[in-house]
Amino acid sequence: MKLAILGAGAVGQSVADLAGEYGHEVVAISDSSGAAVDPDGIDVERTLERKAGGDPVGTDGVDDVFESDYDVLVEATPTTLGDAEPGFTHVERALEDDRHVVLANKGPVAERYDELRALEADSRGSVRFEATVGGAIPVLSTIEDATPQAVTAVRGVLNGTANFILTRMAAEGLDYEHVLAEAQDLGVAEADPTFDVDGTDAALKFVILANVLADGGFSLSDATVEGIQDIPGSALDLAAEDGRTIRLIGEATRESVRVSPRLVPENGALAVTGTRNIVQIETRHAGSLASSGRGAGGPETATAVLSDVGRLPEL
Amino acid sequence: MKLAILGAGAVGQSVADLAGEYGHEVVAISDSSGAAVDPDGIDVERTLERKAGGDPVGTDGVDDVFESDYDVLVEATPTTLGDAEPGFTHVERALEDDRHVVLANKGPVAERYDELRALEADSRGSVRFEATVGGAIPVLSTIEDATPQAVTAVRGVLNGTANFILTRMAAEGLDYEHVLAEAQDLGVAEADPTFDVDGTDAALKFVILANVLADGGFSLSDATVEGIQDIPGSALDLAAEDGRTIRLIGEATRESVRVSPRLVPENGALAVTGTRNIVQIETRHAGSLASSGRGAGGPETATAVLSDVGRLPEL
Repeated sequence: MKLAILGAGAVGQSVADLAGEYGHEVVAISDSSGAAVDPDGIDVERTLERKAGGDPVGTDGVDDVFESDYDVLVEATPTTLGDAEPGFTHVERALEDDRHVVLANKGPVAERYDELRALEADSRGSVRFEATVGGAIPVLSTIEDATPQAVTAVRGVLNGTANFILTRMAAEGLDYEHVLAEAQDLGVAEADPTFDVDGTDAALKFVILANVLADGGFSLSDATVEGIQDIPGSALDLAAEDGRTIRLIGEATRESVRVSPRLVPENGALAVTGTRNIVQIETRHAGSLASSGRGAGGPETATAVLSDVGRLPEL
Repeated sequence: MKLAILGAGAVGQSVADLAGEYGHEVVAISDSSGAAVDPDGIDVERTLERKAGGDPVGTDGVDDVFESDYDVLVEATPTTLGDAEPGFTHVERALEDDRHVVLANKGPVAERYDELRALEADSRGSVRFEATVGGAIPVLSTIEDATPQAVTAVRGVLNGTANFILTRMAAEGLDYEHVLAEAQDLGVAEADPTFDVDGTDAALKFVILANVLADGGFSLSDATVEGIQDIPGSALDLAAEDGRTIRLIGEATRESVRVSPRLVPENGALAVTGTRNIVQIETRHAGSLASSGRGAGGPETATAVLSDVGRLPEL
């Protein structure tokens, strides 16, 4: 398939880098600095070198990307809340042109899911978004294959930054501020870590899961969210005396979405360590399925994007 | 899709029972006692009642099944080794008639994989076999979506009977013979438990995995296999003193297949308990993915069969 990639951050760059290995061609890539478009396939290596050197990815513009002969639009621009723009309009444009869309951007599927599905219904293109939930872990395709009606709930740890901080606080007996600084030094937390530590990032993912289970109806404002910023080190010590620890746990059902710190057994499945993520999928006929893996990262998220591309029908 | 089910044991019955919920119709079901064929869909409830009452499933024969207007042959007859008959011929017949095949029977894909793929290449039908590995856990579809070339190894616990026995031996300090008897009383081990305890069942699954990774080339005779029958209770006590336990672990790569009891950390991912299964999939770009769940059971395995049916293209 011919891919047009919007967004040239870690995910967009990794998709461009790995596309060939999966048998696909990159005909366009763009970000705020510019666009590179080539119907015969862009020179991925040189484009990534330009980007790394601080130069624009190319001299074309976003309109050139949409006018190119692509099969799949990969939407990997930063997640935005509320109106989910400009991501939503990007998706709309591709669907109106009867092209496929694969999202890594959580905004459109968390905040405007019903509108997105309506646009998809009127388009020959399909929308997939495995990369928006759980990085490399195949959460959405597992639910899709089990059929959403057979899944009653999804629970787990879907933010690696918060999980890393809690793991380190428990392991070292350090306080939150100290470990947050360490996480920022390591690049595990951003300069502005708000969405990771206040639970918003995890909540967006569980809202997306609820939308899949219930076929729509949820946006971020429907989620009950509590983050990890107020957890004192003493809470973790107390938990440890009882053979437990604290993790930022989310849960999505057809009826509700909530994210909050919870006590979990120290050696239990939900007590994943470091930046690792885990989801537990409760099913009607097959009990509980648990999947864990790397929830974030350029190559990790790119594998989810490319896995989605592989499941798209020929246009 | 219209399903023709060969085999009316726990799996075949569960597939018949759940098919309607997934939007499919059962037009035939058969076992050694007979067959029931109805182009408008068999009466599943009455057929299962007949079976439960010890009566033949129906008065038709296996040829009637193959001559019916089905889309997908579900091969759920008992796994046989070597020539994998009669399962292999069942699959061959369906493919020669350009129909799809979904296997729960491990024999054809473990013992005659290359021949099977050759038949599939000449057919308009496709072959899928998620249900042959890991019950409800979506192992093969995860590898398929990641693309087999991106997977370097698959490791894990894929036999619930052996795992249950080892879990109980460690938990209760009982010896193998005692726990085996308990497992048989509970229905977790069969009257003849040989294939579960000598590692053959697990080996068949890892041979199937190696065939998927390497696109063929493996059969059961290529696997190095050691079972759990000779593990004394004292070995588990010794392991526990070191914070470890023993599990029957298999591993498949493109080059080899082995199954044997191994020491694993007591609280690690591979130390699943009871009849639960786990697979760890090592990937090139996304680290390690771990999936655990129920590895066996009628409804559990049926969900894997029906998940496969959902991924088949229209004929």
